Amino acid sequence: MKSLTVIDALINHLGPSKVLTGEDVKERYFHIWQMDEPLSAKAVLLPQSTADVSAMMKICHAHHQPVVTHGGRTNLVGSTETNANEIVISMEKMNRIEEIDPKSRTITVQSGAILETVQQAAAENKLLFPLNFGAKGSAQIGGAISTNAGGLRVLRFGMTRNLVLGLESVLADGRVISSMKKIIKDNSAYDLKHMFIGSEGTLGIITRAVLKLIETPKSRNSALVGLDSYDKVVAFLKYMDSGLAGTLSGYELMWKVSYQALTSLPSLASPPLPYDYPYYVLLECLGSDQEQDMIRLHTLLEDALAQDLIVDAAPTQSYPDNDRFWAIREEVGAMVSHCTYEQQFDVSLPIPLIGEFVESTVEKLQAIPEVEQVFMFGHVADGNIHFIVGKPNQDAGLTHAINEVIYLPLQEIGGSVSAEHGIGVHKKAYLSLSRSEEEIQLMKDVKRSLDPRNILNPGKVLDM
Amino acid sequence: MKSLTVIDALINHLGPSKVLTGEDVKERYFHIWQMDEPLSAKAVLLPQSTADVSAMMKICHAHHQPVVTHGGRTNLVGSTETNANEIVISMEKMNRIEEIDPKSRTITVQSGAILETVQQAAAENKLLFPLNFGAKGSAQIGGAISTNAGGLRVLRFGMTRNLVLGLESVLADGRVISSMKKIIKDNSAYDLKHMFIGSEGTLGIITRAVLKLIETPKSRNSALVGLDSYDKVVAFLKYMDSGLAGTLSGYELMWKVSYQALTSLPSLASPPLPYDYPYYVLLECLGSDQEQDMIRLHTLLEDALAQDLIVDAAPTQSYPDNDRFWAIREEVGAMVSHCTYEQQFDVSLPIPLIGEFVESTVEKLQAIPEVEQVFMFGHVADGNIHFIVGKPNQDAGLTHAINEVIYLPLQEIGGSVSAEHGIGVHKKAYLSLSRSEEEIQLMKDVKRSLDPRNILNPGKVLDM
Repeated sequence: MKSLTVIDALINHLGPSKVLTGEDVKERYFHIWQMDEPLSAKAVLLPQSTADVSAMMKICHAHHQPVVTHGGRTNLVGSTETNANEIVISMEKMNRIEEIDPKSRTITVQSGAILETVQQAAAENKLLFPLNFGAKGSAQIGGAISTNAGGLRVLRFGMTRNLVLGLESVLADGRVISSMKKIIKDNSAYDLKHMFIGSEGTLGIITRAVLKLIETPKSRNSALVGLDSYDKVVAFLKYMDSGLAGTLSGYELMWKVSYQALTSLPSLASPPLPYDYPYYVLLECLGSDQEQDMIRLHTLLEDALAQDLIVDAAPTQSYPDNDRFWAIREEVGAMVSHCTYEQQFDVSLPIPLIGEFVESTVEKLQAIPEVEQVFMFGHVADGNIHFIVGKPNQDAGLTHAINEVIYLPLQEIGGSVSAEHGIGVHKKAYLSLSRSEEEIQLMKDVKRSLDPRNILNPGKVLDM
Repeated sequence: MKSLTVIDALINHLGPSKVLTGEDVKERYFHIWQMDEPLSAKAVLLPQSTADVSAMMKICHAHHQPVVTHGGRTNLVGSTETNANEIVISMEKMNRIEEIDPKSRTITVQSGAILETVQQAAAENKLLFPLNFGAKGSAQIGGAISTNAGGLRVLRFGMTRNLVLGLESVLADGRVISSMKKIIKDNSAYDLKHMFIGSEGTLGIITRAVLKLIETPKSRNSALVGLDSYDKVVAFLKYMDSGLAGTLSGYELMWKVSYQALTSLPSLASPPLPYDYPYYVLLECLGSDQEQDMIRLHTLLEDALAQDLIVDAAPTQSYPDNDRFWAIREEVGAMVSHCTYEQQFDVSLPIPLIGEFVESTVEKLQAIPEVEQVFMFGHVADGNIHFIVGKPNQDAGLTHAINEVIYLPLQEIGGSVSAEHGIGVHKKAYLSLSRSEEEIQLMKDVKRSLDPRNILNPGKVLDM
């Protein structure tokens, strides 16, 4: 008697509606975000519950079947790439908001819930889910957790990791590991959820989460500031963080070239300050009193001007100005539009070293004849800088040369090749610049212990 | 030829000054904090560097020698208890502050550094290390990290976990796992430090850390508030958190019985409010402008009184009042002094359920004839409540009965038997109320993977 194939076993157990194969796979699913290649996979599974995911994994485990979990596929490092031998588990049907508890200030969700939906549900209860980034309309919570996503307000609210109170994951063999509690502190033995957060689907499949919400701030004030040296960018950060106490929530740096691109066509944003300064900081303060907080911000800016800490400042004059100012920072596409092809980077390093690192990196990049554009900007208060490097072609040698210019110096200065995007497949070759041999060895021990058959997102993050 | 004993091997390799045995052990070291039993151990090792710890663990690993790491031994759950077959590694000589970087806002320390020393070093650089708790004069950073300590300002700054940027640990076999970087964001593969944080010395020995500092707040204002129902305690938390935006840093609840004990002899603290209310909240706001922030706080309190959210309020009128007010909350010894013997508890549960849980728990405790006193107080904004139960003797049956009253209901309402103190040995029997069988199984898998010979703090946290 011939034994069942994994597909037969899945269909037998879950029914055909949860197991798509053949043309259904190609027609309905794409490989990764913004890429219209058809999906290459043996099947797409559509679980509707944790029990479904557990059953699927038990079968896949028994068949040594590799699995790739798909959320919103907005990942930037190839973590959701698949091949024809792999099965995709897409979390799209598990998109329920299970409960909002305004007194506990928690929201309980299935992992396929869209980030923006979660934000809206919180807002309807006068609460804020502070995680926010460009792909919020597509990104799913499970994906955000499994990549420990960052964004524009990490300075105040932390990475995704800091917003997860409870988590439910399914292991490679189908066991369910759940800490779905609405509690803020739990030191009863190991806090296992941290193993799954940021593991890019290689240690477990995240199925549900309890997330932390905060009271909606009653005031929002922003300012765009021009500065004449990187040292002052750091001094001004300390000054504003101290002057605004716990209310400073955003502090984004744009080098002049980026500010220009972000505020001129094809960007629809207009520039609140002239193109006269080498550095532009956009900052945000979320407080409790619109008028008083505005006065405090304006006073701080005036004093900073008087002290020569900053050269120019355009504070928001009214609440709607905030969106207009932050639209500038979100016009990343305007920088990309200047590039025929581009490479994007997401590195971190100690804050005081960023100025010099960026300067020498740009110099080295411009020394590569094919490099056409270099844009630099980022979450400087988190030590996290993005580069967008424009180039005329996708030549592998050129890609490699650009990678080396940016990544190689990071090892010596204690930086990281990935501040927030993760490793996926694109950065695997550079992982050893961020992590020691002993760390990578221990990561592999952990992976082997949790997924001995290497069926969860194999080939991503680590080479087993 | 007789093979070397583990002690001989340690002395040969490290020299006699780092390996204390015999009377030196008994005379100089105590078992646990505030307990004057002499230490029971085969030897006490005094490493001066990570290399020493690594060499010690290689030898102990080769000899299958159990090891207990000692920091300041202020742990409350027996995590540092030893027996005559165990070797103690005391981190007291590794107490160096290696670097403070005011621009990165980081401090790099050896794990034996005393918490208070770290706080002071930060303060000298106009920075704040926000971790704070009663034992700060004895507790070492390594111990705080390995228990993921909490304290009075978790509401704003998080647990110890949130303050650790980089960590160095030595594994059971002597391998050194280090991520000693001054960076805030690092998503390059698994964030291994979270495995060691809160593992109570069972997965590795913490040797060094990079800690996050914040700008020293320029203003501090507090208030003691009387309330007439638990629901209003929750509503007032939301009201103040919203009204004070990011500046609310402390929100401590005392039930009347505790407030009375904390503000009457032998406590030296005087009561700012009369003993007329069932609930007292002590709150703190760390901001940037002493006068303006005080006005804002007073205005919020007046509005809360007008809305009948609170019944009475005593705000601080000047900066020195803060210490006087917070001395009340820190007079825990005054409650203990009312007890012949006592049991202390540290549980967490969803915030809205605390009022009813405490009420029914006190009722059940008072129904035990031997129970003499019950004090309730805690970090209500974190969902974390402490009980001190006074009793006339240390009878095991009575201890067990009191434990069961407090712990058993937590499982059903999604609470934890340990919000911040950890499991150690004292709470091991109750771990399964906080964690599922699958979670405990996975914890054991992790423990086996990292410490296959079970030599790191054996018998603590988990029964292997």
